[in-house]
Amino acid sequence: MIKAVVVGGSGYVGGELIRLLLFHPKVKVIAVSSNSNVGKKIVGIHANLTGMTDLLFEKEDIKKLGKNADVIFFALPAGESMSKIKQVNLKKTKVIDLGPDFRLKDKNLFKNTYGFSHTAINILTDAIYGLPEINKKAIKNSSLVASPGCFPTSSLLALFPFAKNNLLTKTVIINSVTGSSGSGIKLTLSTHHPERANNFMAYNIFSHRHQPEIKQTLDLLQGSSVDVVFTTHSAPMVRGIFTTTYIFLEKLTNQEEIEKLFHKTYENNPFVRMVKHVQVSSVVGTNYCDIAVFVQENKVIITSAIDNLIKGAAGQGIQNMNIMFGLPETIGLLYPGMHP
Amino acid sequence: MIKAVVVGGSGYVGGELIRLLLFHPKVKVIAVSSNSNVGKKIVGIHANLTGMTDLLFEKEDIKKLGKNADVIFFALPAGESMSKIKQVNLKKTKVIDLGPDFRLKDKNLFKNTYGFSHTAINILTDAIYGLPEINKKAIKNSSLVASPGCFPTSSLLALFPFAKNNLLTKTVIINSVTGSSGSGIKLTLSTHHPERANNFMAYNIFSHRHQPEIKQTLDLLQGSSVDVVFTTHSAPMVRGIFTTTYIFLEKLTNQEEIEKLFHKTYENNPFVRMVKHVQVSSVVGTNYCDIAVFVQENKVIITSAIDNLIKGAAGQGIQNMNIMFGLPETIGLLYPGMHP
Amino acid sequence: MIKAVVVGGSGYVGGELIRLLLFHPKVKVIAVSSNSNVGKKIVGIHANLTGMTDLLFEKEDIKKLGKNADVIFFALPAGESMSKIKQVNLKKTKVIDLGPDFRLKDKNLFKNTYGFSHTAINILTDAIYGLPEINKKAIKNSSLVASPGCFPTSSLLALFPFAKNNLLTKTVIINSVTGSSGSGIKLTLSTHHPERANNFMAYNIFSHRHQPEIKQTLDLLQGSSVDVVFTTHSAPMVRGIFTTTYIFLEKLTNQEEIEKLFHKTYENNPFVRMVKHVQVSSVVGTNYCDIAVFVQENKVIITSAIDNLIKGAAGQGIQNMNIMFGLPETIGLLYPGMHP
Amino acid sequence: MIKAVVVGGSGYVGGELIRLLLFHPKVKVIAVSSNSNVGKKIVGIHANLTGMTDLLFEKEDIKKLGKNADVIFFALPAGESMSKIKQVNLKKTKVIDLGPDFRLKDKNLFKNTYGFSHTAINILTDAIYGLPEINKKAIKNSSLVASPGCFPTSSLLALFPFAKNNLLTKTVIINSVTGSSGSGIKLTLSTHHPERANNFMAYNIFSHRHQPEIKQTLDLLQGSSVDVVFTTHSAPMVRGIFTTTYIFLEKLTNQEEIEKLFHKTYENNPFVRMVKHVQVSSVVGTNYCDIAVFVQENKVIITSAIDNLIKGAAGQGIQNMNIMFGLPETIGLLYPGMHP
Repeated sequence: MIKAVVVGGSGYVGGELIRLLLFHPKVKVIAVSSNSNVGKKIVGIHANLTGMTDLLFEKEDIKKLGKNADVIFFALPAGESMSKIKQVNLKKTKVIDLGPDFRLKDKNLFKNTYGFSHTAINILTDAIYGLPEINKKAIKNSSLVASPGCFPTSSLLALFPFAKNNLLTKTVIINSVTGSSGSGIKLTLSTHHPERANNFMAYNIFSHRHQPEIKQTLDLLQGSSVDVVFTTHSAPMVRGIFTTTYIFLEKLTNQEEIEKLFHKTYENNPFVRMVKHVQVSSVVGTNYCDIAVFVQENKVIITSAIDNLIKGAAGQGIQNMNIMFGLPETIGLLYPGMHP
Repeated sequence: MIKAVVVGGSGYVGGELIRLLLFHPKVKVIAVSSNSNVGKKIVGIHANLTGMTDLLFEKEDIKKLGKNADVIFFALPAGESMSKIKQVNLKKTKVIDLGPDFRLKDKNLFKNTYGFSHTAINILTDAIYGLPEINKKAIKNSSLVASPGCFPTSSLLALFPFAKNNLLTKTVIINSVTGSSGSGIKLTLSTHHPERANNFMAYNIFSHRHQPEIKQTLDLLQGSSVDVVFTTHSAPMVRGIFTTTYIFLEKLTNQEEIEKLFHKTYENNPFVRMVKHVQVSSVVGTNYCDIAVFVQENKVIITSAIDNLIKGAAGQGIQNMNIMFGLPETIGLLYPGMHP
Repeated sequence: MIKAVVVGGSGYVGGELIRLLLFHPKVKVIAVSSNSNVGKKIVGIHANLTGMTDLLFEKEDIKKLGKNADVIFFALPAGESMSKIKQVNLKKTKVIDLGPDFRLKDKNLFKNTYGFSHTAINILTDAIYGLPEINKKAIKNSSLVASPGCFPTSSLLALFPFAKNNLLTKTVIINSVTGSSGSGIKLTLSTHHPERANNFMAYNIFSHRHQPEIKQTLDLLQGSSVDVVFTTHSAPMVRGIFTTTYIFLEKLTNQEEIEKLFHKTYENNPFVRMVKHVQVSSVVGTNYCDIAVFVQENKVIITSAIDNLIKGAAGQGIQNMNIMFGLPETIGLLYPGMHP
Repeated sequence: MIKAVVVGGSGYVGGELIRLLLFHPKVKVIAVSSNSNVGKKIVGIHANLTGMTDLLFEKEDIKKLGKNADVIFFALPAGESMSKIKQVNLKKTKVIDLGPDFRLKDKNLFKNTYGFSHTAINILTDAIYGLPEINKKAIKNSSLVASPGCFPTSSLLALFPFAKNNLLTKTVIINSVTGSSGSGIKLTLSTHHPERANNFMAYNIFSHRHQPEIKQTLDLLQGSSVDVVFTTHSAPMVRGIFTTTYIFLEKLTNQEEIEKLFHKTYENNPFVRMVKHVQVSSVVGTNYCDIAVFVQENKVIITSAIDNLIKGAAGQGIQNMNIMFGLPETIGLLYPGMHP
């Protein structure tokens, strides 16, 4: 059994990690930390787990937590995991970081994006960007994986087939929509029920901090700078990301050609499902990314959807763990969604 | 024109007051206060009013605010209005308090219910309980009205016809359901969108602080102690109270008799609508209370619904103002709801 | 492996059955029928199962479907399963009916309740009312189980500890609230999104057809006629039943005594969780019934919640199957809910 | 008083027309028709109007309905108004069509878009496209106005300032999101509450029938063919359209320049509000279109929101009526939205 620790277990991503790990047949959760809830029952915050675990939240003492751990998951806000991961003996314990601290490779870009300096630059370059469909081999050999979040996952899976074939020569427009759980368990006015229900809005236009991460990954795949316009919106639902991506190819294409491109790209990737009609409700509760493509002349529209807390966070982290430990990629993750 | 001031204009009730007063043909809003937003535009918080008012939030200086006011509305949390209302010259300026400070008549009951002592006992007995359908004459002659909130309004309108005829001799069960705006603009976990959407729960069973207010009013009408069980629930909607009330009469009755009782009781009350089927969506956005009755032997079930922020707060306050100033009761309040 | 057939697989209950059975470690789904979708893919209606099954809907030819089946689940509207179940060889194949046809024992009561006559009276008396927490032993030995639906399950689990101890001597008030999936996949105005979202209403007051079923079960347990008032409401959520039950005991009682009664009653029932705070979101996606009790003098309020499609339908059916086949009661059903 | 008739009063647009017209100070509603509800009370379908009108639905006998009418509003599905409008004496009675029959000017384009031929071509060219912010003068002098619907209104108001200045030389991407009321009162699976709540999807990509209408209007303004990509999405809310529009200018621009362009374009248009942050909740219940602009180099993103049933349907129709009858444009339409 893989002995797993969750650092930052009181948020929504942490809760999903605990839930999925508790039912993972090859994992034993040995500790969960939350500095603001030390000594309290996990089910006091995650009532859905009532009757399934007696674990209590522990202090975030990385040395102690890590002693017997085979893997530590970090589910902390931006800036909070870098100093803690430095304390882990990466030769002995693997780390999967679900926060953003190790996703951007350029320290200046990091500072511009997050507003503070990176303090673990020596291990920053070791970290592998943990989008399994793109980086499986590197993830397998890594002991520090920076698992991407919800917006980049849904966007990059829509664009990867084009970028790896150097087809993104014109402006890419990514129009993304998120549910309220993407903002986390922390109370904010925009996730206050009276304000969020029945509402829809765009936010952080031209300034969302996931844009650099998406662009960095596309640039690397494309081998040149990709012009990425990334727009995010809030919808009155709890879970789910829905992304509509618009690209313009150099040449005319057709539906068949683009579908073939996607099928070939993702043929050995069990968590990407090519469908005719993408909807959030089909992926909620699952680790799947559903994708559909639509073509007109040289224009391609790609719709993609994921559960932001699973394929966009906890599930993806576990998928990375499976790969890092040589397990089947899908183990512990093959839940279907519910209808309705 | 009646010169009106709103004290506590940054919450949802305050916002509704401003909205309704701005469009009231006999009112001019001369000032709105909010200590935490002094100098900011009202439309910065209540974006729905964009283009309709240039007013800024002012400090809660009651002396200054009240100088030219004909009426001051208080929309403050429990315990915050009593000391301020003491500063108003009630001979010159009428006060309508939408908070709970002047609703309970017994200072001990007040302390037990709210956990702190009343500090304006000298004017407590002057305050009239401002449920117009029950107390119209007293309201007309009063200069200090304690306007009841959402749960008591929907409950008391369901029970008034029985209490005034001394029919509440057995236990009364009031099962009430509220939308999230009833908890106000203050952020709480139970109104965090991810927690509230798709959820339903009961809360404060046998201990809700509106129970004493309902019981006090029924006891007075009934002329003896009424056994009141009052249970509140949270539903995943923004606006609306829906109350299902169960009473047991001494004798067998029938549908016709009970309908007649209600029609007679409310015949001159334009904001009570007797209907066959009560639903929240028909009253949202309005000052109406819709009521339906159902009879089986000696059992009567009454369903009633209101918009918690209008008939359960701001609209009721304005209805009280209309009565206090000798205006038609309905002026400025005859908005229909929307479908859907 | 138990070879299972689902008759009526295109509705929400059928879909949940398929989903849960596909992942049940001891079951193989050999056929699913839907007369209106013959030859179509199951995932065409239940898109959540994309990639998990290639099954097609078959015709409702019971003889053919039942030939190799160890168990047949019926998920059909009222009146549609009785004639079909008559065609099953109950000595060879077990039947679990999720519809109402075999729940009421009295043919006159059945006719009064459903408006048409029962046509399989010869097997009606053989059918066991399949609420496992009440009837486990009888279910184990039965080959025809009438699995109760969502309202009766949440109500009866709240009342069973009292009824089995003959404590229901006074009127019982059951105030129940349901999500929209309880009305099924068939389109209706009351489940039309614009009408249902943001709305709340009561319906079928004093006339809901689940009242006789609840009363029949309580009468039997109590050994005398119980006066049951049962009121149902629609809330703007998709899944979940929340029931607030009010009872009056002959004697004063207290919190401890009532909690003890519940713990004792349900000590060997893994799907009843006694909690301090019941909420729909903690049971959605699970087979659990969460229950909390509140006591004041001789009054007891019980709150209970279930997922209407799981513990209130498909999950309960599978729980019955587990018992009927001598399997551990919880196998294939131990899913936690999600937070949020 | 303007004597108004509503043809097609049982749908959501018809209901909003009735609601707004009943409270319009210069209008008297003399008749409302609905062929499927002849003789029934209007409040039987639009319960929000309880107590506000005694009108019954009448037969769609245009000759009879139109006899005393100064204006007839048509709120019928595609293809149903053209033959009826032909029966109106346009010299005597003005017509405002809220359906699509008179919006496309080219009969071939009409047939391609709607799948059937136009049968009133002789008056098709007389019809004025009733977007007041673009066409006020022509509307004033017209007796047949084709009032545009929700998607085109929110899109065209975002693009009008550019098109009238011939700036739309590159592909325009319109990414639009609608609430469920946009699909009308007719029951469909995609507006079934269990399917729609918590869900989000795109639909009719590259094939939505409002695209030709948007393109026709932009082409005319721009004076050349505009490349319009128009994508529609369903969100789990009842009311509201939110549109995110992406355009690429020939030259670099900046925030100030674009804001100035919008302010100038809309300076005399009271129902366009330029704001910093657009959200659906601020326009629901109103006739406003809120717009914000965001600029980066040569890229401009415009966000716009309207209430689909008001500015996107009934309210716009009344705005057109006000203009056609020489009334102030805003009369009867200056309702604010509600917060929350």
